[in-house]
Amino acid sequence: MKFKNPVSVKWIAEFSEATIIGNTSGIATGINEIHQVEPGDIVFVDHPKYYDKCIHSAATVILINKKAECPDGKTLLIVNDPFEAYLKLVNHFRPFTPSLTAISETAVIGEGTTIMPNIYIGNNVVIGKDCIIYPNVTILDHCILGNNVIIQAGTVIGSDAFYYNKKTNRDVHYKKMKSCGRVVIEDYVEIGAGCTIDRGVSGDTIIGAGTKIDNLVQIGHDTEIGKNCLFAGQVGIAGATKIEDEVILWGQVGISKTLTIGKGAIVYAQSGVKDSIEGGKVYFGSPVEEAREKMKEFIWIKRIPDLWNKVMGKKV
Amino acid sequence: MKFKNPVSVKWIAEFSEATIIGNTSGIATGINEIHQVEPGDIVFVDHPKYYDKCIHSAATVILINKKAECPDGKTLLIVNDPFEAYLKLVNHFRPFTPSLTAISETAVIGEGTTIMPNIYIGNNVVIGKDCIIYPNVTILDHCILGNNVIIQAGTVIGSDAFYYNKKTNRDVHYKKMKSCGRVVIEDYVEIGAGCTIDRGVSGDTIIGAGTKIDNLVQIGHDTEIGKNCLFAGQVGIAGATKIEDEVILWGQVGISKTLTIGKGAIVYAQSGVKDSIEGGKVYFGSPVEEAREKMKEFIWIKRIPDLWNKVMGKKV
Amino acid sequence: MKFKNPVSVKWIAEFSEATIIGNTSGIATGINEIHQVEPGDIVFVDHPKYYDKCIHSAATVILINKKAECPDGKTLLIVNDPFEAYLKLVNHFRPFTPSLTAISETAVIGEGTTIMPNIYIGNNVVIGKDCIIYPNVTILDHCILGNNVIIQAGTVIGSDAFYYNKKTNRDVHYKKMKSCGRVVIEDYVEIGAGCTIDRGVSGDTIIGAGTKIDNLVQIGHDTEIGKNCLFAGQVGIAGATKIEDEVILWGQVGISKTLTIGKGAIVYAQSGVKDSIEGGKVYFGSPVEEAREKMKEFIWIKRIPDLWNKVMGKKV
Repeated sequence: MKFKNPVSVKWIAEFSEATIIGNTSGIATGINEIHQVEPGDIVFVDHPKYYDKCIHSAATVILINKKAECPDGKTLLIVNDPFEAYLKLVNHFRPFTPSLTAISETAVIGEGTTIMPNIYIGNNVVIGKDCIIYPNVTILDHCILGNNVIIQAGTVIGSDAFYYNKKTNRDVHYKKMKSCGRVVIEDYVEIGAGCTIDRGVSGDTIIGAGTKIDNLVQIGHDTEIGKNCLFAGQVGIAGATKIEDEVILWGQVGISKTLTIGKGAIVYAQSGVKDSIEGGKVYFGSPVEEAREKMKEFIWIKRIPDLWNKVMGKKV
Repeated sequence: MKFKNPVSVKWIAEFSEATIIGNTSGIATGINEIHQVEPGDIVFVDHPKYYDKCIHSAATVILINKKAECPDGKTLLIVNDPFEAYLKLVNHFRPFTPSLTAISETAVIGEGTTIMPNIYIGNNVVIGKDCIIYPNVTILDHCILGNNVIIQAGTVIGSDAFYYNKKTNRDVHYKKMKSCGRVVIEDYVEIGAGCTIDRGVSGDTIIGAGTKIDNLVQIGHDTEIGKNCLFAGQVGIAGATKIEDEVILWGQVGISKTLTIGKGAIVYAQSGVKDSIEGGKVYFGSPVEEAREKMKEFIWIKRIPDLWNKVMGKKV
Repeated sequence: MKFKNPVSVKWIAEFSEATIIGNTSGIATGINEIHQVEPGDIVFVDHPKYYDKCIHSAATVILINKKAECPDGKTLLIVNDPFEAYLKLVNHFRPFTPSLTAISETAVIGEGTTIMPNIYIGNNVVIGKDCIIYPNVTILDHCILGNNVIIQAGTVIGSDAFYYNKKTNRDVHYKKMKSCGRVVIEDYVEIGAGCTIDRGVSGDTIIGAGTKIDNLVQIGHDTEIGKNCLFAGQVGIAGATKIEDEVILWGQVGISKTLTIGKGAIVYAQSGVKDSIEGGKVYFGSPVEEAREKMKEFIWIKRIPDLWNKVMGKKV
C-alpha cells in the first residue's frame, strides 16, 4: 500500500508509540510485504527468524519488537507488538469505508469496457479499455485491471487475505491481519467464473499479462503470477507464492505458500506442490515429483507382489 | 427445525395418516436430525439399521415404517413412507415462500453491521452486530449470524442440503429431501469468498465461534464445526460431520460424511478423510494416515528398486 | 450453434475467403463440435491428426487448412487458418451483444418458475416451468433450462469455454476461441450453489434429466452428462467429456477432457480420471484404478518393510 502523500518517520514513531533508532528525519511512502519491498516502504517483523531479512531488505522503515543495529539511512521503530502497530497504521491510512453503491463514484472505467448487471465495483478501482466484466462479479477497493481483460460471472477480485495472528490470550484466538494491498491484473488476462483472487496483505497480488485462468480458481494474497500462464479449473494457490511466466497448472492442482514455480513448469492435474520447483519440467503427484519419476513409481508398486512371492516363496 | 408453536402428536398422526403407538397426548416442538435431536423433536427413520438408534434417542416422536415397542412417554407414528410423511410436514410447517425483495422485511440486522450492495438476505434471517457482509453474498431464510461475523463476497449461506432419496420407480430417480434446517454462525467467524454452506436437512449446520474459513470452501448440511478452527481454501466437508474445536484443515482437504474429527487435529493439504480421526495428531494422504507414517511410506516406495535388484539379481 | 436461417456454402466461402471444393450449391445450418456434428453443420479442423475424422464425420461443410479429397455431397472450404475463419463466422452470426438489463427482454420464463433477486438472465435464454432460480445466479445468452430445474445461489450457467489457440507470434500467446455454443439443462436437474457450467465452444454442454449436482462443481465446455447422475461437491470435469447415465462421482473427483465414463460407474472421492473408464464398476485413486485393485495396493505398500527386513537381513 502506498500512502497518498509521504509521511515522516517521526510522525509514524509517535503514532505507533515507538522508540526510534537510526534516521529520525526520514520519510515513508507506504507499507509492503517483505518479498515486494522497495525504498520508502515500511515493513514489519515480529519473529527473530526474519529480523535480519527485514532489516537488510530494501525497506526504509522497519517496525520491529527488538532493539537492533540500524543500517545507515534506515529507521527502526521499536514497539512491543509490530502486528498491532501495523493494524493501527492500516486503520488510519486505509480505513474501511465501503462504497454502498454498486459502482463506486471513484471507480474509473476505460472506454469500450462492458460492465454487465449486478456487478460491484469498489472505491478507487481502475479498469482499463475494452474489458468485459460479466454479471455478479465483485471487484473490491483499489484493485487495478489493465486493457482487454475478461472476468467471467461470479468472480471475486480483491477479497481479504486469509491471514491471522494466533493470540494466546483467551478471548481472541485468531486475530485478523487487515489487508490493505491490491490485486493488479495486467492486459489480456482472462479469469473464469466463480474465481476468488485475494488482495495483498500490504503488497500486491499480481496476475501477469496474457495469463488465462479457468473457473473456480483460488489465488492467495501477495501471489505474483507471470505472463502467459494457463491455470485449469479448481486450481488453488496459497499466499505469497511466485509463479514465473508460461507455467501451466492442470485441474485441481494445489500450490503451497511462499514458493517459486519456475518458468514454463507444467504440473499435471490434482498434484500438490509443497516446495519450490524448477522451470521447464513436468511434474505430477501429491507431493509432486518429476512426472517421469512418479510414473515409474506406479510401475514399481505393481511389482511388489512378485517380489513378495519370490522372497517369501509363496503366493499371497 | 422448531415449530412456531408446539403441535399435538395426535394432530401429526392424523396429518401423516399414521398409526399412533405409545403416548397419544404428547406434544412435538420440532423436527430434527438423529445426531442433534432433543426432547420434543420428531425424528424419522425408514431403515431397519437405524430403528433402535432413533427409538432410543432423545427424540419424543418417531416417524417409522415398522411397528415396534414404544419406550415410556414417547410416541411412535407408523407410516408406509416416513420420507413422504417428513416432506408433507415440511411443506406444511415451512412452505417455500421466498422473499422477492433483496433484503427481506422479516430479516433482522444488528447495529453497526455493514451490508454491501447486491446482497440477498432471506426471510427471518438474523444478523448480529458489527458484521461485514460483502457484495453478492446470499443468506437464505432462517439463517442466524452472530456478532462480528465477516462474510466475503459471493458466498452462499443456507443453500439446500445435497440429500436425495433414491426411488426405484421410473419417473423420479432421486427425490429431493427438502431442507428445513438452518445455518447458525457464531461470533467472530470469518468466511472467505465464494464459499457454500448448506443448511441442515431438519437440524442445523453450525460454525463455532472464532472459526476462520478461506475461499471456495464447501460445508455440507448438518455439519457441526467447533470453535477456533482454521480451514484453508477449497476444503470440502460432506454432511453431518462433527469437527471439534481448533481443527486445522489445509487446502483442498476433503472430509466425508458423518465422521468426527477430534480436537486440534491438523490435516495436511489435499488429504482425504474417510473415517473419524483422533484429535491432537497430524494427518496426511488420501485416505489419510498419521503424517509421520505416511511420510515413511514415501521412503519405502523409493526403496522398491533396490529390493528388486537384490532379489532378482539384476538391474531393471 | 444453429444459424437463424440456413446459409449457402457459397456465401460462407466468400465470407471466409476460402477455396471451395466439392458441392458448391450446398447449405449450412450451423457450426458444431466434431463429437456432436449433424448433417448441415460446419466443422473446422487445422490439425492433420483430425483431418480424416472431420472430413468423414456427419458434418456437411469442413473448414480446413489443407486441400483434400471431398466426399460426395460435402463441401470443403480451404483457408489458411480455419481458427480465424471460425472466429470471423462466430463474430458475424453471434456477435457479443450483452443484455444490460438484469433479465433480458428476449428471455422466456415458464409458468410457475420462481426467479429470486439479483439474478442475471441473458438474451434468448429459455427457462421451463416450475423451476426455482436462487439469488445471484447468472444464466448467460442462449442457455436452455427444462422444467422443474433448481439452480442454487451464486451458480453460473453458460460461462465461456476455457479454450485457447496457442500462437507462436509474440504479441498474443493464447488467443481465445470464442464460444457460441449453449448449456442445455434437462428436466428435474438440480444444480448446487457456486457451480460453474461452461457453454459449448460451438456445440452444447448438456446435463441430462434427473441429474443432481452438489456445490462448487465445475463442468467444462461441450461435456455431455447423462440422466440421473449424482456429482458431489467440488467435482471438476474438463471439456468435451461424455458421462453416461447414472454415474456417481464423489467429492473433489477430477475428470480429464474428451473421455467417456461408462453407465453407472462410481468414482470415489478425490480420484482423478485421465482415461475413459467402463461403466458398472467402482473406481479410486489418482490416476484411478478399480477400487478393489487400488485398495490391495495400499496393503502391498505396507508390506515393503517386512520384505526389506527379510531380504536385507536387518531391521531398518
